[in-house]
Order: sequence, then structure tokens, then C-alpha cells
Amino acid sequence: MFLVHNYSADFDKYLSGLPFSGAADKLYEPIRYILSLGGKRLRPTLLMMAYELYKDDVSTVMPQATALEVYHNFTLLHDDLMDKSDMRRGKETVHNKWNDNVAILSGDAMLILAYRYLFQQLDPSCASVVQQLFTDTALEVCEGQQLDLEFEHRRDVKEAEYMTMIRLKTAVLLAASLKMGTLLAHASAADADALYNFGIGVGLAFQLRDDLLDVYGDPAVFGKKNGGDICANKKTYMLIKALEVADDATCLELNRWIDKKAFDPIQKVAAITAIYDQLKIREFCEIKMKMCYDQALSSLAAVSLPAAKKQNLLDFAEHLMFRTT
Amino acid sequence: MFLVHNYSADFDKYLSGLPFSGAADKLYEPIRYILSLGGKRLRPTLLMMAYELYKDDVSTVMPQATALEVYHNFTLLHDDLMDKSDMRRGKETVHNKWNDNVAILSGDAMLILAYRYLFQQLDPSCASVVQQLFTDTALEVCEGQQLDLEFEHRRDVKEAEYMTMIRLKTAVLLAASLKMGTLLAHASAADADALYNFGIGVGLAFQLRDDLLDVYGDPAVFGKKNGGDICANKKTYMLIKALEVADDATCLELNRWIDKKAFDPIQKVAAITAIYDQLKIREFCEIKMKMCYDQALSSLAAVSLPAAKKQNLLDFAEHLMFRTT
Repeated sequence: MFLVHNYSADFDKYLSGLPFSGAADKLYEPIRYILSLGGKRLRPTLLMMAYELYKDDVSTVMPQATALEVYHNFTLLHDDLMDKSDMRRGKETVHNKWNDNVAILSGDAMLILAYRYLFQQLDPSCASVVQQLFTDTALEVCEGQQLDLEFEHRRDVKEAEYMTMIRLKTAVLLAASLKMGTLLAHASAADADALYNFGIGVGLAFQLRDDLLDVYGDPAVFGKKNGGDICANKKTYMLIKALEVADDATCLELNRWIDKKAFDPIQKVAAITAIYDQLKIREFCEIKMKMCYDQALSSLAAVSLPAAKKQNLLDFAEHLMFRTT
Repeated sequence: MFLVHNYSADFDKYLSGLPFSGAADKLYEPIRYILSLGGKRLRPTLLMMAYELYKDDVSTVMPQATALEVYHNFTLLHDDLMDKSDMRRGKETVHNKWNDNVAILSGDAMLILAYRYLFQQLDPSCASVVQQLFTDTALEVCEGQQLDLEFEHRRDVKEAEYMTMIRLKTAVLLAASLKMGTLLAHASAADADALYNFGIGVGLAFQLRDDLLDVYGDPAVFGKKNGGDICANKKTYMLIKALEVADDATCLELNRWIDKKAFDPIQKVAAITAIYDQLKIREFCEIKMKMCYDQALSSLAAVSLPAAKKQNLLDFAEHLMFRTT
């Protein structure tokens, strides 16, 4: 995946040259910190890849790529605070390293900075559509996070509700990254929508894969223990589907594990995994993933470009879905 | 103040017709709540008054007035959380009525909604300057809040630092409201800057007045007891100036009161007020207020319009500064 690596390296180089500073330096210190923690730079990469389907001068859209990455990191910063997470990318989260107020205020500043970069060197002829896409998407991500928080207190979440939540919380920003690259390149509205839908399909499939790997991933390959979501009672596709399809006795058993305040993690993970096995949740999830991914592929096929042009994006999606490291 | 009342009533009527709703209604409930708590609608009023200096169709700029009010209420929502305030305008604060996560997330959504309204029906020819003004100002307000939080842990804040803080936290948004009205009316850059500076002067004077009234206001007139800031050790102009000009013995006495964990509020207010009296802090504050207000008046005088045209704004500023109810 040489090309993909290049996009993210190019972006990192651009990002590291930006000044995140102002009248109160302590406001900007946590911003520099979270942006320096790295990550896949997925959203900038998608924007750049989409733009390069149509145009060569990708360096001109770096400010908009920055807007997406700064926005994404703003959501991580506030979500970590809401979830009381201690660690992010192997380092302390901002509210842990500083405090809650710092996380709130520096996060707010990041959201404003995202808008600042969105409009930087932005072609006036596409300013209105780009701003609308960004604003609509940003609001949808908040709605997704709201639903996710609500699901914590519910046991009757249905698969369709879960799919709505992960579409809003995760998929729309990936889709918007692709669409923004397309709009910035002045491609057709039809292509912009097709790439958006490609992003939705990939985003959904990617999130389902994440849920699946928590239970069935190879710890030696993915570098984290199985069952983190299970121990935390996280409302993943796996748990929601299991609660949906289980008979009364199995449902009772699942709820018994969920309600337990004290438990042996190994036992809990084993017991719930056994229930998932028995209910064929892995198969349900894989079918759903495939449906989403197939929808993504047919959306990509609808983009009015020769297949060879689209190979990079296809490779990137395959890499996201099937990489084993 | 018939005209001013009309602006805020017109704005309230417009605001009440707007839908604050979406995919996750619980995200929008706290937004409708805080916006319904009322308030002076100072920022929309200033935008509308500035616009009407030049143009008649003030109804066309209601979305931008909304952006300012939604942004302002976003800052109140997050500031109340950071300050752990229980009440706002006589009602429960959002984090108190719901919880911290609701306050964080609904606040974030308000900031995004502010941008949505900013661009609604916005004349494309002034979109860029309006967006830059809004973004720069929003970031400055965060910087001001950051400085305010830092001042809590300091005893060596100087008057100049305090003036910078209140300029950022309070004055720039009032100034930007006036400037935005001017820009939307396509007035000259010179007028836009003069009205901005008028707003800065009024904003600073207004904040100093607020600090002064906490100590010397007539409780019968202003409806709240004296000394709220004193009891909370709030770093107001009064306290900062006192710490700055006091001799060693008086400084020790002030710090002794600040450090006391348990105290009789009446005693503390009386003791610190006596120190302020002795140090002539009231006079210092009144001189500073007058300087800021005079600067505001000379900025208003520089606006290239007949004095009669500007009378409304002048009356409004006088009303803000000298009203006794």
C-alpha cells in the first residue's frame, strides 16, 4: 500500500508545518498534543484520493484535509472525556493528562479551527456546498454520538437502530471526506454522491469488522486481547444482534452477565463468546459486513471513471477491510 | 428603550420559529431549553442595530443574528459546566438538569448550528469576511475563557492581563456583532472597524461595571446580594487591582481571606469591601470604565453617518451602562 502510505505521510508533513498557537498557549498545547499522536489519517487520505481521481494538484486541498482531521480529533477528544477513556493511541487522553475543563475548551477550539481550515484557500465557487457538507456531517456525527450514549442505557436496541448509529457516528465522516475531495475537484454531482455512498458502505463494513474482531480477531495479529467490548458491556453489533435473536433463556443468561458488577473477565468473555457461537452471531455479522461492502463496491462501480483510475480506492478499501496487520 | 426592546422581541419571534431538531431529539432538547431561557439578546440586537444604520431590510440578517445568539449560548452552556454553576437565568443549568455529557455534546452541536445559521441566506459577496470575523472571534472567546480559567490559580494577575482577558472573553463578541451587521450591509471597512472598536469599548466598560456592581451595586435595584464575586474569590477587576496596589500588610490580609476555607460570608464581604474602600478600588474602576466608555464614544463618532442616525446606538450603550433596573 505504497500510495496510501504516501498520502498520510504527505498529510503529516503538511500538518506538522501548521501553527496551532494563539493568545493563550495553554489552549493550544492539548491540540498540538492530540494531533501529534498520529493515527491513520484516514479522512485526509480519502479526501486526497478522491480529489486525485479528477485533478493533479492535490497540495491545494491540504487545508480542507486538515479541517477533516482536526474535526475528527475534536470528536475523539470530547468522546474520550464522555466515555472516561484513559488512553488513546497508547498515550494518555487529554482530560487525563490535563483535566476535564482543558478537554472541553481545547476541543471547542479545535472545532472552530476545523472551520478555519475548511475555508482556507477554498475555491469560492464550491465554498457553499463544501460548507454545507461539512456542517451537515459534523451535526450528524454529534447525533450518532448521542444515540451511542443513549444505547448504553438500553437493552432493546434493534439492528436497524445500531446501523443508523454507526452510519452517523462513523460512516458519514468517511463518506463526506470522499465527497469533499470530489466537490473540490469540481466532479459531477452524480460522482460525488456515488463516492459518498462508497464511503458509507466501507464505513459501515469497517465498524462491523471492528465489532467482530473484538470477539474473533487473532490477538497475536491485532495486538489487543479479545473481549474488551464484552467486558465493558459495549453495545456492539454482536451484543445487539445476540439480544435480538436469543430465546428467553439465553437472553436471561446474557443479561445476567451484563448485570454482574464483579466478574472474572476470562470467564465472562468465554461465556458470552459461547452464546455468540451458539446464536451464529459471527455469521450474522459477516453477512451484514458483506452486504455493506458489496453496496460500497457497486457505488464505486457507478463512478464515471475507468476502472484503472479507481483501482487505488478499491485497493485502499480492501486493505482496510482485509488487512491482517 | 422602545426600539431596543423591539429588536430583541423581533429576534425572539424569529428564533421561536426555528426548528432545533434532528435524528436524535435528545441532542436538541437541551438546545431548545437554553435558547428558551431568554436573556437580553444583546448580540442579535447589536447586529440588527448596526445593519439598520445602513439598510432597511433587517429581516434578511436574522440567520446571522441567530448564529451569534446560538454561539453565545453555546459558550454559556460549556462555561457553566466548566465553572460548575448550578443556575443560569434563574433556571437549572444544562449539566445540572441533564448531565455533563449532555452539556458537552449538545454544546458541540450548538457550535455547529451557529455555523449553519451563519451561512443561511448569506450574501455570497460577503461570505468570506463574515466567516473570518466569526471564526476569529469564536477562537478569541475560547482564548479568553482559557485565560479566565488560568487566572483562578494565580494571585499575580496584572490589570493589563485582566483587560486582555475580558476583551477576549466578552468584548470581542459584542464588537463582532456590530461589525457583522456593518459588513452585511456592505458599509465601508472604516465604518466596520469603528463600530467594532465602539463594541470593544462598550464591552470592556460593561464588564467593569459588572465587577463594580457586585461590590457597590444597590441590592434593592439589581436584585442580587453584594459580594457574590468576593465570596467566590473571583478574579474581578476589583480584586486584581486591590492585589496589585495593596501594600504588603494589606496584601497579606487579602490573601488570608482568599485562603480561608470556612468563613462567614457577611464578614468576608465586609472585610474585603473595607480594603477596597481603603485602596480606592471603586475610583480606579470608575476611571477605567470611563476611559473604555470614552474610547467607545469616540469610535462611534468616527462612524461616517449623521449623529441622528447613531443616536439609537448611543442610547443603547447609555442604557447598558447606566440603567438602574
